[in-house]
Amino acid sequence: MRNFSEDTITDAVLERFEGATDPRVKQISEALVRHLHAFVREIRPTQKEWEYGIDFLTRTGQMCDDKRQEFILLSDTLGVSMLVDAINHPVPDGATETTVLGPFFVQAAPEKNSGDDISGSMEGDPMLVTGSVSTIDGGPLAGAVVDVWHSDNDGYYDVQRLDEIGDLAMRARFHADANGHFHFWSIKPAAYPIPHDGPVGQMLQAQGRHPWRPAHVHFMISAPGFEQLVTHVFVAGDTYLDSDVVFGVKDSLIREFIHQPAGRAPDGRMVGSAYFHLKYDFVLKQAAGSARAA
Amino acid sequence: MRNFSEDTITDAVLERFEGATDPRVKQISEALVRHLHAFVREIRPTQKEWEYGIDFLTRTGQMCDDKRQEFILLSDTLGVSMLVDAINHPVPDGATETTVLGPFFVQAAPEKNSGDDISGSMEGDPMLVTGSVSTIDGGPLAGAVVDVWHSDNDGYYDVQRLDEIGDLAMRARFHADANGHFHFWSIKPAAYPIPHDGPVGQMLQAQGRHPWRPAHVHFMISAPGFEQLVTHVFVAGDTYLDSDVVFGVKDSLIREFIHQPAGRAPDGRMVGSAYFHLKYDFVLKQAAGSARAA
Repeated sequence: MRNFSEDTITDAVLERFEGATDPRVKQISEALVRHLHAFVREIRPTQKEWEYGIDFLTRTGQMCDDKRQEFILLSDTLGVSMLVDAINHPVPDGATETTVLGPFFVQAAPEKNSGDDISGSMEGDPMLVTGSVSTIDGGPLAGAVVDVWHSDNDGYYDVQRLDEIGDLAMRARFHADANGHFHFWSIKPAAYPIPHDGPVGQMLQAQGRHPWRPAHVHFMISAPGFEQLVTHVFVAGDTYLDSDVVFGVKDSLIREFIHQPAGRAPDGRMVGSAYFHLKYDFVLKQAAGSARAA
Repeated sequence: MRNFSEDTITDAVLERFEGATDPRVKQISEALVRHLHAFVREIRPTQKEWEYGIDFLTRTGQMCDDKRQEFILLSDTLGVSMLVDAINHPVPDGATETTVLGPFFVQAAPEKNSGDDISGSMEGDPMLVTGSVSTIDGGPLAGAVVDVWHSDNDGYYDVQRLDEIGDLAMRARFHADANGHFHFWSIKPAAYPIPHDGPVGQMLQAQGRHPWRPAHVHFMISAPGFEQLVTHVFVAGDTYLDSDVVFGVKDSLIREFIHQPAGRAPDGRMVGSAYFHLKYDFVLKQAAGSARAA
């Protein structure tokens, strides 16, 4: 119970978890200590390197505020977020594939009506998104809640330049209609570097990596009795599809954003300039233990 | 380069480190990802558990300021700090054994003269500390820099109650004399719980662990050409010697703080009340690659 050496300290720490009442807390604590100690034993950090690690984690936490989540960026760039996603959504089974949530989701996105333009004051190439939400059997999910958010023409999200633009934009919450359909107008998103003026940016630079993500639109779709779908649709042809800094790209999530001339759009609107049209049909998976609707 | 599964994502992340120019950065990054992914694969976190982990780390960083270092507490309580210490100071070889730095070291401790009372305005049982600093061969290390810091009678460090006490206390920097000796007066430290009103305290509670450390005095001792010694001397008989929350106790670092009656102390001072006397002879190890002084 004293005089721990490199060989005995791990067991000593594990013994301390004997009193944990929640078995999941005990399991996670034990696994954390075994893997963390194995990491430390392998790299054999100097005292200075340990201090650097403490400082790195501290700065990562202190970079976080209501508009910036540096620990999610760290998880994303180390592939942990996509690993957790893969564990929770293992095999394509007819449902739309999932990808990372990312750090730019906002709980209180403005409610909008289908057909609305959500671009706010932002300039860029007009984009029409038409989508549907259905079950694996193809049944429409009427009333499904569809959260969308995406970057602007310069690759920034609203929350990154809120001082400048004054209000949330390029994000909204829609409700699918009786046929499970929704559509909206916005501007075409651009590829962007993740925020890299903090510890994660320093890490990427030291690792010789670029900070870019291919252009995409985020979707989070919910319906009672179904697993919440967290995903993106990526713009086909983007430079960074094969080197997404957060490892989020899946082939089934890439779509052509089709360039269309000015004129009457599929939703009946007369458009004065050329625009891009993204069409995607989302398929939700029944939640485990939930009885299927008749 | 896309469509990563649970089985392929780790290699995909490792490939991204190919461009790292510093081999140590590459090595640490690779080991981190392998062990971190193995941990995630073992515990198979739900999305909610991942979110809890992100939030836990964020709160840990945000708990840190110039008087509180929550990530050091996390490292200490998970046994990582003592593992790093064991790796860097493996075998007792005649030199004084090491232990954790802890979160309460302050760079700019006040310089004091040997014999000074460093207790400031704090009340408690008077304590005389007499020490020496020498080489493994027993040669005195004249001029060695001796930083000391310890808790008060209630188990708090000065930095934890600075608003109340107004100034640093129970910490100082001394210089050993020509014989390698130093001594000072203070008050006897008490056992204390590490700060447990933050994320680390929540973790300890969930793990069924108490937050206590046995009473001790911190020492950090430096001399040119010698490894810096970071250690404590623990009070013999303390309740928590066998369950130190940070795993820091070594038998060789436990000493009787001998109770002495009022009267003339070993340093010649007349003391009006009973006091405790700690005597410890510190032995520093030659730094690797440093020529021994003749």
